[in-house]
Amino acid sequence: MKHGGDLTEAMARYGGEAADWLDLSTGINPWAYPFGDIADAAWRRLPSQADGQALLAAARHAYRVPDGVDLVAAPGTQALIQWLPHLAANGPVAIVGPTYNEHAPAWQNAGHEVIAISDLAALPDEAVHVVIVNPNNPDGRIADHATLAAVAAKLHQRGGWLLVDEAFADVDPAIGAAVLCEKLPVVILRSFGKFYGLGGLRLGFAIAAPETIKRIAAVLGAWAVSGPALQVGARALGDDAWGEHMRAQLIEHATRLDFILTQAGGKVIGGTSLFRFVRHPDARYLHVQLARQRVWVRKFDWASDHLRFGLPANDAALGRLADALSTHD
Amino acid sequence: MKHGGDLTEAMARYGGEAADWLDLSTGINPWAYPFGDIADAAWRRLPSQADGQALLAAARHAYRVPDGVDLVAAPGTQALIQWLPHLAANGPVAIVGPTYNEHAPAWQNAGHEVIAISDLAALPDEAVHVVIVNPNNPDGRIADHATLAAVAAKLHQRGGWLLVDEAFADVDPAIGAAVLCEKLPVVILRSFGKFYGLGGLRLGFAIAAPETIKRIAAVLGAWAVSGPALQVGARALGDDAWGEHMRAQLIEHATRLDFILTQAGGKVIGGTSLFRFVRHPDARYLHVQLARQRVWVRKFDWASDHLRFGLPANDAALGRLADALSTHD
Repeated sequence: MKHGGDLTEAMARYGGEAADWLDLSTGINPWAYPFGDIADAAWRRLPSQADGQALLAAARHAYRVPDGVDLVAAPGTQALIQWLPHLAANGPVAIVGPTYNEHAPAWQNAGHEVIAISDLAALPDEAVHVVIVNPNNPDGRIADHATLAAVAAKLHQRGGWLLVDEAFADVDPAIGAAVLCEKLPVVILRSFGKFYGLGGLRLGFAIAAPETIKRIAAVLGAWAVSGPALQVGARALGDDAWGEHMRAQLIEHATRLDFILTQAGGKVIGGTSLFRFVRHPDARYLHVQLARQRVWVRKFDWASDHLRFGLPANDAALGRLADALSTHD
Repeated sequence: MKHGGDLTEAMARYGGEAADWLDLSTGINPWAYPFGDIADAAWRRLPSQADGQALLAAARHAYRVPDGVDLVAAPGTQALIQWLPHLAANGPVAIVGPTYNEHAPAWQNAGHEVIAISDLAALPDEAVHVVIVNPNNPDGRIADHATLAAVAAKLHQRGGWLLVDEAFADVDPAIGAAVLCEKLPVVILRSFGKFYGLGGLRLGFAIAAPETIKRIAAVLGAWAVSGPALQVGARALGDDAWGEHMRAQLIEHATRLDFILTQAGGKVIGGTSLFRFVRHPDARYLHVQLARQRVWVRKFDWASDHLRFGLPANDAALGRLADALSTHD
């Protein structure tokens, strides 16, 4: 599977070891949530119902999930992306793109026709389901609640779902559309690892009407989420102060990154505060130039003049990026 | 979902907090693998292809997987139990039981008829697939390779699978049937958490022919296993000395447990060195008696005179069990 974000590929093509690389190819927060100690029991015993309930209570709070809407935890949103097309009604899915490249194959593999659309306003008559990443990855485009609700109402008549992948929505809690799930067939995905800087933990959520969540929980099965993820997730999602502080910090560092990218001749045309989407006339060449200096960023098959940059974790990393951008070999 | 092994249920019915209970309701090794420190990167970044390859190499070694047979890691074998019935050819499945109670609903939910059989020799003509837990949970019955191969050869003609759940096979490496996967449609499940005492980690494996593993990997999707599980799993599965020592230790402690259970009027009629299966004329009463003293063991819907006991972790726990068994309130 090609993700373009795996450092294993970078090392295979350009050499070096993981420690040699500045990996800016993901949208994962470089300042991880300081989760403290993990209880021995979290590693040793099977997660209990009580552990799961504590996590879901914290997630309900963080994601502003109203009463009457339910949620379920999974070992990463990818696990949900894999299952949902198997639970969805038969029929074509329209995917608003270009976007995160895991949705389309998951629907195709489950037997759904995939229709690529560039805007929610261009909803094809034959689409039974719609997938939108909100904010979109990589361009950061945001669909508001009214727009989402209008599409969901149409899909309701067709017996389908509006799947809203809110992988990067933590950067602004107002984006979260959980409130729509009460009356509309909206299924929301939330990714824990990106905003909390813990991609290796594998934790994600689906939010939807209770009967839909019940079906998702049934296919995920028991003990879907690890003990450490339950414990870390409950702590982090309940920590409003850290979240608020981090949102400000991300914006500050994204602004500093924009300055460097602009200095290097790039034009920042979108993104979120977790990654920046840049147009550069020499993007393809720049990708190679950076890779030769062990800086790994994301390029795109569908846009030869665009790159995506994650946030450097400190001044040294930012300086290294600036140097690599200006060094032509 | 009812597992009978969740302490949350015990506390709801009999009171107390988790720390008050002696939980002997699982077959998880109470002496967890001492896995050392987890690298920061394992929590923070998405698991890489290299991480996955290191884990699979260690698992291939530990589970004696020959060349020409492949394997894939999942966040616990439960995730595989959930997916496999969706990948299997249409048709009924025969499940050798009584056994672990998660297989039947997973096949039913995927639309397969489930036929309960008590012995592999009683293979129904209409069964396309067979599920066997080997050694069986809870009675410890072991099917040998020749018996498994004969059944798999029949199922091969029917286009089906022999699913062998080797959740407790680590207690004797000779039980592992990975060698059969080379020429027969055998799919093997291995559970990491039980023998290594890390049930909360969520790590399991499927072993099968390469084309089958490719299909399983495709539905699991990317980053299925957490960074900590990849790191801990690779270390533990490569540690032959620990494994050998632990196998002897488990046998020693199972023997001590048997003595206590026999003293209390039970007859140990099976199990593995990770759990003991006991017949006792007052089993139902004993379950309540133990629960009232905050000792939680497994009972079975299908056998009112049987209980299953996990291993007490130390002399104090063993003594507490002995006292609880002899204390009638």
